[in-house]
Amino acid sequence: MMKDYTFDDYKNLIEEHLMDFIPDIDHKSITLYESMKYSLASGGKRIRPVLLLAACDFCGGKREEALPYACAIEYIHTYSLIHDDLPCMDNDDLRRGMPTNHKVYGEAVATLAGDGLQAAAYEAMSRDMFFYFDDIDALKRRIRAAYEISRGSGCRGIVAGQIADIAAEDKSCSKEMLDYIHLTKTSALIIAAVRAGAQLGNADEETLENLTVYAENLGLAFQICDDILDVEGSEEEMGKKAGMDSINKKATYPALYGLEQSKTRLDNLTQTSINALKKYYDNAEVFVKLAKDLAVRGK
Amino acid sequence: MMKDYTFDDYKNLIEEHLMDFIPDIDHKSITLYESMKYSLASGGKRIRPVLLLAACDFCGGKREEALPYACAIEYIHTYSLIHDDLPCMDNDDLRRGMPTNHKVYGEAVATLAGDGLQAAAYEAMSRDMFFYFDDIDALKRRIRAAYEISRGSGCRGIVAGQIADIAAEDKSCSKEMLDYIHLTKTSALIIAAVRAGAQLGNADEETLENLTVYAENLGLAFQICDDILDVEGSEEEMGKKAGMDSINKKATYPALYGLEQSKTRLDNLTQTSINALKKYYDNAEVFVKLAKDLAVRGK
Repeated sequence: MMKDYTFDDYKNLIEEHLMDFIPDIDHKSITLYESMKYSLASGGKRIRPVLLLAACDFCGGKREEALPYACAIEYIHTYSLIHDDLPCMDNDDLRRGMPTNHKVYGEAVATLAGDGLQAAAYEAMSRDMFFYFDDIDALKRRIRAAYEISRGSGCRGIVAGQIADIAAEDKSCSKEMLDYIHLTKTSALIIAAVRAGAQLGNADEETLENLTVYAENLGLAFQICDDILDVEGSEEEMGKKAGMDSINKKATYPALYGLEQSKTRLDNLTQTSINALKKYYDNAEVFVKLAKDLAVRGK
Repeated sequence: MMKDYTFDDYKNLIEEHLMDFIPDIDHKSITLYESMKYSLASGGKRIRPVLLLAACDFCGGKREEALPYACAIEYIHTYSLIHDDLPCMDNDDLRRGMPTNHKVYGEAVATLAGDGLQAAAYEAMSRDMFFYFDDIDALKRRIRAAYEISRGSGCRGIVAGQIADIAAEDKSCSKEMLDYIHLTKTSALIIAAVRAGAQLGNADEETLENLTVYAENLGLAFQICDDILDVEGSEEEMGKKAGMDSINKKATYPALYGLEQSKTRLDNLTQTSINALKKYYDNAEVFVKLAKDLAVRGK
């Protein structure tokens, strides 16, 4: 791993190339392009693509070659946010301090921008594979990466999580169900990011497994942190209205366990995620720092 | 090509295996599975997967091995119908004579069922590739097939078409724009179906090109046929309310050219599509019959 690459270095690399893998869109469908770009460009922490690039580096791969997959996972994450914000879902007017996609372009275009971003992710990954037709091992790594991403974004990943999240609204939610929602809704795509990056870097089984444990716990920590901020944070910190989980009767950690226990769990998850990479402390800095920063944010 | 396989034989093969490539979904997200299955099982002509299997056979491939791709393209087609029917899009209550997905499961679940079906398509195709890690040529054919499908379903395919279709509502639409809408909205995924099948069958460049011309014209004929039926057909024939295009002020061939010219164009497109395969008349029966049946339906 190139030790001198920080989270922000990775993030800048993503920002620079984020539109590179969106296919050329005919001017007759220009609204589609504009609405996709609007949501892609509206900031965000880029945690998933950074983790993908960092995992690739960490395992000895070339980060530039992982860019189509890093951007693909950000396209998928962005599509899921656009659809989650729709009036029939969470009905949010603000995202990252800006009007949500449907507030600017209307519900029809927002729905299609999401659909288009999901398709663009797979088009980008399939197209990339053509460049490796002469290198069977590189090709296999890419197929494995695309599979990880498809798995995390599908019916056992973010879509399953969002369905369960909606189903749990207004109802008493079991602890088992809450764990399931957070694992699918948040951890699944974060796991996919590190695993796809690790596959691209040709990771051995043990490293892949340790990175997976890191990502699973980081994902859960991430969701609890969001839940805590929704209770304690300001609209400015959140980039959207705070207190909405409670108004929407969402199943959250604070609602089920209280704030104090939620914070303890956030600490434990952070520690577990960092411990999974203890063995590699020397060059796992980006991963460790990300987990620690997250824990501070949720304090 | 196995000459004894008819359209219905292919269709039966699809019906039998249509759920095989949907991933195991946790019971906590059972509504997702049910709503996806509801729309998949609600009939439909299965034209795209049949064309994919037939093109694979036609070029000398094994149809059973093409099944994951055939089902994937039907998942994508089905997701696009679920989203097209949403209140924010075409707002249809009926599809194939049954209540549309959102009428049964609500808008949120319908949106997610569509998202899940698109993801399932790519998960199925990526997973299938693992079985061919020892056969590099077979692997390349599968990557090409997946790319064709991603291209037809994306920002230059059905999503572009649906955006342009919505943008053209209530407005005067140029002939160029109408052609663009029909090419992207309908032909793109039909072209993807035959090209993906041809790639899986290891087609040579000339056959691939001829099948593409066939599919492009068939797709346009298909859309004009639908437009004509919306004017002249009954609710029974359509499986949904007739006359909706006119009420929604959709850009259609009959609206722009009148019924007579639309029928002439349908005939011409049918003839052009059949002529593209003239060279192979002996074993292109399924393709020729499909085009002819379509032309009769629109008379």
